[in-house]
Amino acid sequence: MMNPVIETILQHRSIRKFEDRPLTDEQIRTIVECAQAASTSSFVQAYSIIGVKNKETKRKLAELAGNQSYVEHNGHFFVFCADLHRHEVAGEMEQKDVLPSLESTEKFMVALIDAALAAQNAAIAAESMGLGICYIGGLRNNLPEVCKLLKVPKRVIPLFGLAVGYPAQQPDKKPRLPFEHVYHEETYEQDRTKFESQLRQYNDTVSAYYIKRTNGKRRDTWTGQIANMLSNPARMYMKEFVEGKGFNLR
Amino acid sequence: MMNPVIETILQHRSIRKFEDRPLTDEQIRTIVECAQAASTSSFVQAYSIIGVKNKETKRKLAELAGNQSYVEHNGHFFVFCADLHRHEVAGEMEQKDVLPSLESTEKFMVALIDAALAAQNAAIAAESMGLGICYIGGLRNNLPEVCKLLKVPKRVIPLFGLAVGYPAQQPDKKPRLPFEHVYHEETYEQDRTKFESQLRQYNDTVSAYYIKRTNGKRRDTWTGQIANMLSNPARMYMKEFVEGKGFNLR
Repeated sequence: MMNPVIETILQHRSIRKFEDRPLTDEQIRTIVECAQAASTSSFVQAYSIIGVKNKETKRKLAELAGNQSYVEHNGHFFVFCADLHRHEVAGEMEQKDVLPSLESTEKFMVALIDAALAAQNAAIAAESMGLGICYIGGLRNNLPEVCKLLKVPKRVIPLFGLAVGYPAQQPDKKPRLPFEHVYHEETYEQDRTKFESQLRQYNDTVSAYYIKRTNGKRRDTWTGQIANMLSNPARMYMKEFVEGKGFNLR
Repeated sequence: MMNPVIETILQHRSIRKFEDRPLTDEQIRTIVECAQAASTSSFVQAYSIIGVKNKETKRKLAELAGNQSYVEHNGHFFVFCADLHRHEVAGEMEQKDVLPSLESTEKFMVALIDAALAAQNAAIAAESMGLGICYIGGLRNNLPEVCKLLKVPKRVIPLFGLAVGYPAQQPDKKPRLPFEHVYHEETYEQDRTKFESQLRQYNDTVSAYYIKRTNGKRRDTWTGQIANMLSNPARMYMKEFVEGKGFNLR
């Protein structure tokens, strides 16, 4: 059950160090066209992509994302945005009141899902060309500043970056949750004992991965790492911010 | 700039009629493993997939999704869910208070994005095997009933279905928004006249597509179709529903 597509997908690892070599315009165009080929909810195409080449803009984005050097140093930097701005314009062009729709939580979800489907096509396309990628959720640390920098209007939210470039490292693949824990047959798993024992099994896998990778210095489990991270609520300004952008209001 | 991966991605079209031929367990496993290989925000893996084979369940889902026959008749039906349930369990296992995080709009976004990235990997993997796919947003017509049927707990939201199977039709590719309208260089497009003229250009493309496809019976424009659809607010129960599931509360 192997083919070049599945091979590309299964070979994925995030690349956090790139050669100093820009993508060509043709590469950028192909990546964006692949993004656009993704499915979209009822044809709405509720996303935009901002491509950043400018070194100063990249440097500022890297700072805003928490000083991740690969946001500054890469072959190209894409910013994927949820976008209902063009739908507001469409409503004005057609003289229809589309605001209650645009402000709904349903359309907020549609825009997020549309943007992510497009982004994953872009990621796979880039990887198929021998490039590496890393998603940059760190952009959400400070979206007001990101919006100012990229001149993003109302009804547009930068969701994450995608750093793309020629890999200058070859990290290990990170082990995923057990198949049976993620894939449920017919109904969601009801057996709490089984559910927890799958998480414990995964903890052993993740520990072994870290021990091997750090010569025993780190031995984090998954539940330990996740519970630690989640016990420090992050980006709690988000609700107010997305509402201010005209999303998720009703 | 063509390779088998990019070819698969650019060849995408949604399939709404499948042969009566189930996927093998091996095909299902490969598709799910490809989904799992996608990037995930800070390793959280905030999604689950429910696979439905049962004919009666499929029939009910088809009804709930607005009588789409391809929800009932396909090779396999996947339901992609935003999932923070396992993270709540992780918090309990580690005795950490993770609730403020789990209830944040930020983590709602993370779960939606994670689920969509995984789903698009699944879609591309399926298409690379010669299968066809169709995303089923119609599941969101009635999520309380979908949750009951699939026994989905709190902190899990079914987002969309993915019908997969052997194609029994070969529809045309639907034209996408102009490249320049979706892809912005350095900053978001500020010129409203240019922005609107791109939409008008696209209206002509979309009209031509419908005229050809329906022998002149349909001549919808994109802004017309979208403004019409959005002027009828849909699924306005969503905000209350996702809050009831423990998401998007603060």
